[in-house]
Amino acid sequence: MCQLLGMNCNTPTDVTFSFSGFAQRGGITDHHSDGWGIAFFEGQGVRHFVDHQSASTSPIADLIRRYPIKSQNVIAHIRKATQGEVSLENCHPFVRELWGRYWVFAHNGNLVDYAPRLHGSFKPVGQTDSERAFCWLMQELAKSHASVPSVAELSCTLRELVPQIAQHGTFNFLLSNGQALWSHASTHLHYVLRRHPFNRATLSDEDLSVNFADHTRESDRVAVVVTQPLTTDENWVAFEPGRLYAFEDGNLNA
Amino acid sequence: MCQLLGMNCNTPTDVTFSFSGFAQRGGITDHHSDGWGIAFFEGQGVRHFVDHQSASTSPIADLIRRYPIKSQNVIAHIRKATQGEVSLENCHPFVRELWGRYWVFAHNGNLVDYAPRLHGSFKPVGQTDSERAFCWLMQELAKSHASVPSVAELSCTLRELVPQIAQHGTFNFLLSNGQALWSHASTHLHYVLRRHPFNRATLSDEDLSVNFADHTRESDRVAVVVTQPLTTDENWVAFEPGRLYAFEDGNLNA
Repeated sequence: MCQLLGMNCNTPTDVTFSFSGFAQRGGITDHHSDGWGIAFFEGQGVRHFVDHQSASTSPIADLIRRYPIKSQNVIAHIRKATQGEVSLENCHPFVRELWGRYWVFAHNGNLVDYAPRLHGSFKPVGQTDSERAFCWLMQELAKSHASVPSVAELSCTLRELVPQIAQHGTFNFLLSNGQALWSHASTHLHYVLRRHPFNRATLSDEDLSVNFADHTRESDRVAVVVTQPLTTDENWVAFEPGRLYAFEDGNLNA
Repeated sequence: MCQLLGMNCNTPTDVTFSFSGFAQRGGITDHHSDGWGIAFFEGQGVRHFVDHQSASTSPIADLIRRYPIKSQNVIAHIRKATQGEVSLENCHPFVRELWGRYWVFAHNGNLVDYAPRLHGSFKPVGQTDSERAFCWLMQELAKSHASVPSVAELSCTLRELVPQIAQHGTFNFLLSNGQALWSHASTHLHYVLRRHPFNRATLSDEDLSVNFADHTRESDRVAVVVTQPLTTDENWVAFEPGRLYAFEDGNLNA
C-alpha cells in the first residue's frame, strides 16, 4: 500500500519535520519505492514535485527536507504501484484546475475494475485507477456547482460522490483546493490536531524530535493526516472508515 | 520583458548547460527577478517547478542546475512582472490537461486590455494576461478537435488562433504537449538546431563551455529556442515576427 501525508493549517507552516519521517518510508523503513510526490499550496498557486525515484534517495526529496517551504495545505504521497507502470505520469499527487482554482489529489488503495464514464473535460494522462477517480470527482463537482462553492457545500457534494467510488475497493484519499483538506479512509488514516499548548514530538521513523513550542504562536492550528502515525508522543486519532473529514484552518469541521 | 527558454529533442536530453546560462538572467546579468519556472516532459508526465524567488538565488533553480533531468521537451521562463502581482500563481510556465495530455505554456510580452471570453472549462487561477491567453488557446483547441490531433493538425489550428491573440500586443510564447514545441514571436526569439557534427559551445552569461561532441550520439537532434542567444559560438536564427514555428524531434517542421 502507498503512504499518504496531508497538512492543513491556519498559517503558512513548513512540513519539513513531518516530511522527514514520512520520506523514510519510501524505501528505508518501509517498502514504497515506486515514486513519490508532494504538492504545496501557496495562496492560489501550487508547487508540485513528483519523482519516480524513491523518496529516501531522490535529490528532490532531499531538497524538500532542507528547504522549509511554508504552506497552509500540503499533500504528499509515496507510491507502491498496484495499477499502472512506474512512470512520472502515474506519480501522485495529481493536479487539475476547476473554477479557476487548482485541485490536488492523492490516493492510497486499489479500485478494482474501476472504469467511470469520463465524458467531461477531465481525462487521465496516466493509467492509474487513482487518476480516473480524481477525474471523475472533478467532472462530477463541475456538474454540481456553477462556480467555486463554499467548503461546506463542497463537503456535502463530496459526501454524495465518494461512496460511489469507495464501493469499488479501498479508497483512502487526500484532496485540497488550497482552502480545505478533504480526506476519507476505507482502511487506514490517522490525524492529529496540533495546537496550544505545543509540546515536543519525536518521529517514529528517524531519530529526530522537535519542540513545537519553540516554533509556534499560541494561535497556530495545524492538522496532519497520515496513513500511520508519524510520531510516538502525540494523540493520533484513527479515521472512522467511510466518513469524509474536512479540515479547514487546522480544525476538523463538524 | 521576461525571458523564455525552450528545448525540443529526439532523445531525452538534459538542459543543465542551457539552463545554467539562462538562470543567470534572473537577477544577475539581467533584471528579471520576479520569479521563474521550468517544466520538463518525461513521457506523458510533467515535472513542474515554479518559484517566486529570483532564478539566480532560488534553491530550486540550484537543484536544476545540478540535477540532470533528461527530457524531450522543456519550457522555462524568468519573469519580469508586467501584469499581476509577484506570487506563485502568476509564475510561468502554466500547466493544463486537455485530451488526456498535459500542456505547458509560457509567455513573454504584454497583451493590453486582453479579456477573452472564457466560457469553456479552462479558467485562470492568477491575474496575468499570459494565463488568460493560455486558457483561451486551450478552450479553442478543445472546440476545434474532438481528441488529440496530429502535430500537423495542431499547427494548422494554432496558425488560425495565435494572430487573434497577437493583435492585442506582444505575444512571444512557447507551448508544448510533450510531442512538439510550438513557438511564436511578435518581437524577439531565436533558435538553434544542434546536430552532428557537434561542436564546443560557450555561454554568453557565464564562464562555462561544453563540447557537445563528448555527450552526444550522431543521431541526436536538439532544438533550443530562447529570447536572446545563449552562446557565443553557435548559429542562432532570429524568428520571423508573426510566424508560428513547430519543432518536433529536434527538427523545425516546414
